[in-house]
Amino acid sequence: MAPSVLVDQTTAVPATKSLERVVISASHTNPSLQVTADHNLKSVDAPIYAPGRGEVLVHIKATGICGSDIHFWKTGRIGSLVFEGDCIIGHEASGIVLQCGDGVTNLVPGDHVAVEPGVPCESCFLCDDGRYNLCEDVRFAGVYPYAGTIQRYKVHPAKWLHKLPDNISFAEGALLEPLSVVMNGITTAGLSLGRGVVVCGAGPIGLIALAAARASGAHPIVITDLESTRLAFAKDFVPSCITYQVDRTKNAQDNARAIRALFGTSEYVAPETVLECTGVESGVCTAAYTARRGGTVMVIGVGKAIMNNLPFMHLSLAEIDLRFINRYRDTWPPCNCMP
Amino acid sequence: MAPSVLVDQTTAVPATKSLERVVISASHTNPSLQVTADHNLKSVDAPIYAPGRGEVLVHIKATGICGSDIHFWKTGRIGSLVFEGDCIIGHEASGIVLQCGDGVTNLVPGDHVAVEPGVPCESCFLCDDGRYNLCEDVRFAGVYPYAGTIQRYKVHPAKWLHKLPDNISFAEGALLEPLSVVMNGITTAGLSLGRGVVVCGAGPIGLIALAAARASGAHPIVITDLESTRLAFAKDFVPSCITYQVDRTKNAQDNARAIRALFGTSEYVAPETVLECTGVESGVCTAAYTARRGGTVMVIGVGKAIMNNLPFMHLSLAEIDLRFINRYRDTWPPCNCMP
Amino acid sequence: MAPSVLVDQTTAVPATKSLERVVISASHTNPSLQVTADHNLKSVDAPIYAPGRGEVLVHIKATGICGSDIHFWKTGRIGSLVFEGDCIIGHEASGIVLQCGDGVTNLVPGDHVAVEPGVPCESCFLCDDGRYNLCEDVRFAGVYPYAGTIQRYKVHPAKWLHKLPDNISFAEGALLEPLSVVMNGITTAGLSLGRGVVVCGAGPIGLIALAAARASGAHPIVITDLESTRLAFAKDFVPSCITYQVDRTKNAQDNARAIRALFGTSEYVAPETVLECTGVESGVCTAAYTARRGGTVMVIGVGKAIMNNLPFMHLSLAEIDLRFINRYRDTWPPCNCMP
Amino acid sequence: MAPSVLVDQTTAVPATKSLERVVISASHTNPSLQVTADHNLKSVDAPIYAPGRGEVLVHIKATGICGSDIHFWKTGRIGSLVFEGDCIIGHEASGIVLQCGDGVTNLVPGDHVAVEPGVPCESCFLCDDGRYNLCEDVRFAGVYPYAGTIQRYKVHPAKWLHKLPDNISFAEGALLEPLSVVMNGITTAGLSLGRGVVVCGAGPIGLIALAAARASGAHPIVITDLESTRLAFAKDFVPSCITYQVDRTKNAQDNARAIRALFGTSEYVAPETVLECTGVESGVCTAAYTARRGGTVMVIGVGKAIMNNLPFMHLSLAEIDLRFINRYRDTWPPCNCMP
Repeated sequence: MAPSVLVDQTTAVPATKSLERVVISASHTNPSLQVTADHNLKSVDAPIYAPGRGEVLVHIKATGICGSDIHFWKTGRIGSLVFEGDCIIGHEASGIVLQCGDGVTNLVPGDHVAVEPGVPCESCFLCDDGRYNLCEDVRFAGVYPYAGTIQRYKVHPAKWLHKLPDNISFAEGALLEPLSVVMNGITTAGLSLGRGVVVCGAGPIGLIALAAARASGAHPIVITDLESTRLAFAKDFVPSCITYQVDRTKNAQDNARAIRALFGTSEYVAPETVLECTGVESGVCTAAYTARRGGTVMVIGVGKAIMNNLPFMHLSLAEIDLRFINRYRDTWPPCNCMP
Repeated sequence: MAPSVLVDQTTAVPATKSLERVVISASHTNPSLQVTADHNLKSVDAPIYAPGRGEVLVHIKATGICGSDIHFWKTGRIGSLVFEGDCIIGHEASGIVLQCGDGVTNLVPGDHVAVEPGVPCESCFLCDDGRYNLCEDVRFAGVYPYAGTIQRYKVHPAKWLHKLPDNISFAEGALLEPLSVVMNGITTAGLSLGRGVVVCGAGPIGLIALAAARASGAHPIVITDLESTRLAFAKDFVPSCITYQVDRTKNAQDNARAIRALFGTSEYVAPETVLECTGVESGVCTAAYTARRGGTVMVIGVGKAIMNNLPFMHLSLAEIDLRFINRYRDTWPPCNCMP
Repeated sequence: MAPSVLVDQTTAVPATKSLERVVISASHTNPSLQVTADHNLKSVDAPIYAPGRGEVLVHIKATGICGSDIHFWKTGRIGSLVFEGDCIIGHEASGIVLQCGDGVTNLVPGDHVAVEPGVPCESCFLCDDGRYNLCEDVRFAGVYPYAGTIQRYKVHPAKWLHKLPDNISFAEGALLEPLSVVMNGITTAGLSLGRGVVVCGAGPIGLIALAAARASGAHPIVITDLESTRLAFAKDFVPSCITYQVDRTKNAQDNARAIRALFGTSEYVAPETVLECTGVESGVCTAAYTARRGGTVMVIGVGKAIMNNLPFMHLSLAEIDLRFINRYRDTWPPCNCMP
Repeated sequence: MAPSVLVDQTTAVPATKSLERVVISASHTNPSLQVTADHNLKSVDAPIYAPGRGEVLVHIKATGICGSDIHFWKTGRIGSLVFEGDCIIGHEASGIVLQCGDGVTNLVPGDHVAVEPGVPCESCFLCDDGRYNLCEDVRFAGVYPYAGTIQRYKVHPAKWLHKLPDNISFAEGALLEPLSVVMNGITTAGLSLGRGVVVCGAGPIGLIALAAARASGAHPIVITDLESTRLAFAKDFVPSCITYQVDRTKNAQDNARAIRALFGTSEYVAPETVLECTGVESGVCTAAYTARRGGTVMVIGVGKAIMNNLPFMHLSLAEIDLRFINRYRDTWPPCNCMP
C-alpha cells in the first residue's frame, strides 16, 4: 500500500474486523472504485489489509457490474440500504488467493476462488434456521459500510470464498453471483423436469434464468421481452426456447393469454411456474395472469419498493402464489460444479 | 311441488342433470330465495327435483349467509362469476337426507348431512392433480346458474354430502363451509404447534381462523381489528389470544411494528404466518410488514379485484411469500370429526 | 375377429366395460400373449372389442417387456396382485388410433399415442387427492384380470392415451411408461440443479434414472453397479456421470464410503439424493449409508416383499428419509414434451 | 470446589473450552453422577468451572433420566457414541442462572432456564443449512466426553439456554427436552388439524407425542401399546384419544387392520401419519401397515441399530414414507410458550 493514499477507505468499515494494514511491496497499489455519499463515483487507492484469523487476502481478478451498483451510484440507496459515506462497490467477483490468515484450512495461496459477498452473523435465529441470506446483521460486500470487490486486493472470510475448478474462468467465476440469485429462485419455485415455465424478461437475470431453467429440464420454456433483439439473443443462446414479444398496446391479461396459447389450451401443460425477471409492474401483472391455476409466480427481480395493480382476485381464484427471494444461500457449490 | 309455482326455477340450471320433477305430496312446497339478474331478491316456490343416479334429495335445515351472497345480490357479480339470470343463492348448508337416487351407498334417508357446495368435473387435470377446488367446470351451488341451498328441498350428488355425527347441530353443520375455507388456508400456510400467528380481522372468517389456529396449537396468537367490540368478542371466544386494535392514524409499517412488539424482538418468536382475513388493502399491507423474515402471508379473504400499494421490495428483502386460496378441498371430514 | 378363436379372452375381464365385439374385417386377427393361471405363456387370437363411450380402439405398435411381466409369468404374482386366470400381459405400449367411441374429443383416427396403462376410478378419496396412482380400484392393463397391451388391437379410455409428437417413435413412446416411473421418483425426491445424486443400479430403470437425473441438472451424478460392462454402457450413455463398481467383498458401509469419497469429504457436496434402482437388499443398505445427512433415499425399484438389515439407527442419527413410489401420476405430458 | 476431589472430571472434556475452575465459596461442592468406561455409575464431587465468554454458570435444579442414559450406563454406547472414559451424564435439565460470562446479553443471574444440551459448531454446511441437530461436531451434554447435567453447577453457552416463563416449573422445564424430540417428529411429519394419527407406544415419548398430537389438532388419535395399564393412563391423560391394545398373538398386518378399523373403512379418514414411539421391530412393522396409502410413518424412537422384516413391497405399493429424526432444532421457544 502506497503512502500516497489520498482517500482513506477506513471511512468505510471493512467486511472484516482486521484493520491491520499490510504492505505487499512498496510498489503495490490498490486501485478501487467508490460510490460517495453525494452520489458520485471516485477512483481511490485504498488500503490493503492483512487477513485476520479465518480470513484470506484475495487478488480480485474480475467483478461484474450489477444493476444495484448503478442504482446505489445514481440514488444512493435501495430500500433501507443507504450509502451514508464513501464505500467501494462491487459484489460479483472472483480472484486468486494471495495470503491466508491463521486457521484457514480450505484454501491455499494460488487457489482461484469465487466470492460469496454476504457474510452472515451465523448465530441469529435466521442463520440457525438455514436462511442465512435473511440475517439482519449480514455484512455484504459493496453495500455501505462494507467494502466491495472493485478493488485489487480484498480481505474476505475463507468460509465465504469458494474454490473454482480449473475449467471455470475468472469472468465465469464472477457470474456465479447472479447465477446464485437465479438458483435461489428456481430452487424455491421447484422447477421440475418436463414442466412448463415462462421467463419474463430477457435481460441479464432473465437470460441466466433461461439457461438455468433449461439445465433443470423445464420444458417448454417461453421467454418474453419488449425488445425483439433481446429475444433473438435468447433464442440463439437457448435454441429450444420459445420467444414472445410483449405487445405494449395490449394489457396484462391479453399478453398473458397470448403467452399461454403457446403452451396449448389445457391447465395440464400450462406454465406451472413464471420466473419474473423484469421487476416492473406490467411484468408482474402479466406473470400473475400467465401462471396456470395452482401455479407460482417467482419474483426474482424487484425494481420498485411499492407495486400497484396486482390482480388479487385472480390470484385467489386461481390459487397462484407470489413468492419472493432475497439473494441466495448455499448456492456456490451447486453453481460451480455444474457440467 | 305446488301447481302454483309462479317463477319457475328451471331458468336456472340445477347443479345436477336430473330434471324430473317430483311431488313429495300435494301439500309440499319448496320456498326459495333467488337473486335476479337485475339485483333483486325474490322469494319463489321452486320446483322439487327427483334425485338421479348418485344423487340425494336433501331437506335443507340450515343455511348460513355469506358475504358473497350479499355481494351477488348487491352487484350481481364477483370477478368472472356473473348472475345473468335468476338463481337460488346460498351455499353454507346442512340438512336431512329424504331420498337417495340409484347407486347411492354412503347415505340413507334420515342421515344428517353437511353440503359441500362445489361439484367438480372429476376428470380435468386439476381434478386429477388433487386440486378439485380449482376445476374450471365446477358447478357451485348458489352461483348462477347452479341452484343454491336457500330452498327447502335440494338435490345434490351423494359424494359431496358429508354425514354429520350426532353431536353436531344443523347450524354447526352449515358452518363447516366457512370453516372449510379457513382449513384450506391454515393447511396451506402450514401452521404448527408453538409457532406464532397473527389473524388480521375479527369478522366471521377471522374468528373462525382464530379458533382453528388455536386448535392447531399455534401460539402466541394475536388478532387485530379496527373495532374494539369485535376484539372483545374475540378475547372472550379464545381467551389465550392477544388482541391488537389497529390504529387508523398509523400507516401499515407502524401498525405492523406495534403488532410485532407483542411477540418480542427476535425473528425467532416473530409471527411465522399472518392469516389475512380482512380482504382490504390496509390489512394486506400491514400483514406484509408483520410476518417474520422468511414467513408467509396467507390471503384468506379477498375483497377487491385489484390491490395497490403492495410493499414488494420489503417482501423480497424478507422473503415473505403471499399465498392465496380458493375455497377448499378435502376439508369436510377433517372439519366434522374435530373434538 | 376370426371365428377360430381358441382361447376366449373374455375369461379375463377387459379394462373397459364395453364387451361388444367388433369385426374390423374378416381377415383381421388379434394375436396376443397371455400368462395363464398355471404360469405358462400362451399365444392367443383374442377378441377385438368396439370402443365404448370415451374409449378408443388402438392398433398397438410397440410394447416393452417389463421385469414385472416376467415375474407374473414365472411366479403368477407380485404382492397382492395374483393371476387367477389367463390374462394378456404388457403395459409399456404405444400405437395408432383406429377408431374413437362416442364422446372422444382429444384424439382422432391416425393419431400416434402412448398408453397410460392404469385406469383409476376417479372418484375415491385418493383420486380426489391427486394420488390417482394409489387408487385401490385401478384397472391396470396387463395385471389380471385386465387385458394388457401385447395384443394387436386394444380398447383403452381416451383420457389415458397421450398423443405423441411427430419426433417420437413408437418404441420411444412405449418407453414413456418406465420413464414415468422414474419421473415419479425424481419428482418425489426433488432433484435439483447442481445437487449431487447417486443412482444405484445400471439396469434399465437405473439407466433411465441416470438420463432423467442428467436432464434435471443434478450434478455430480454417480452410478453404481456390480457389473463393469453395465457401467461402461452407462458412461457411454451419459459421459458426464461417474461410475462406481460395487465391491462384493465389501459391506454396505464400506461401499458407501467409497461412493461418498467420489463427491469429496463435506456433507455440502455429498449426495442429497440416492435413487435406489436395484431392488435388492444390499443396494438399499448401501443407499442408506451413502446419502448425506438430512438426505433422501428414493426407493424406485422393489424386488422383495420383505427387507432385512435396514440400518435404522443410522437413518435416525442422520435424518435420512426412505421414500417410496408406486408407478406414476401426471407424467406422460411432461415425458413426451421433453427436448 | 472442595480440594478433596477424588475423581477429577477433567478426564471428561467439558462442553466448553473454559477450563478455569472457580470457587463459589469454600463450602460449595458439585455432586455429580458419572458413567465410567467400564459401565459403572459413580458419584463424584466434580470441579466447578467459571463461565467463559458467552457462557453461563447454571445451578441445575432438575434433570430427567432418559432411556439413553440407562443405555449408556448398561452398554457404554449407542451406535457410534462410545463412553471411552468417565463422563457426567444427563441432558434433560433446567436450572437457575448463577453467573454470566462476558458478552452474555440474553440472561441475567436469577433467570430460570431450560438447557438445550447440544452445542453445534455453527459453521459447517449442516449448521448453515438449518439442520444444526445433524452437525457432526456437536458437543452434546451427557455424551462422552461432554459433561452432562447431573451435577449441581454446570457451565453452558448462553445461546443454548432458554429462559423459562414464570408458569413453568423446573421439572416441566427439564421435560422440554423430550418434548423437543416429539416436536421435531410432529413438525417433520406435518400433523394437521382434523387429520387422523396413530401413536405407537404409550411410554414416556408416546405419551408426550399423544399430548402434542392433541395440541396440534390431529383427530382422531389412536394410541397403541401392549400394556392395558399404560393405555388406561393414556386415556386418563388425553380423554379424547382412542386406545388399542396390541395383540401379541396377531401379526403386524392383523394388528394394523384392527387399528385402521377404528378410523372407518375409507382412506379418507385413515391415519395419514403414524408416530412410531416404540423403537421395536413389531411396532415399526405394524406402523407400516397402519398408515393410509400416501401417508407417513414417522420413526421417533429407535431401539435397534438394524431392523428386519420391513414390508418394502407394501410401502412401495402404498407410497408410504419412512421418515426419521435425530433430536431437535429450534424447538425450545415453541415448546415453552405453549398455553
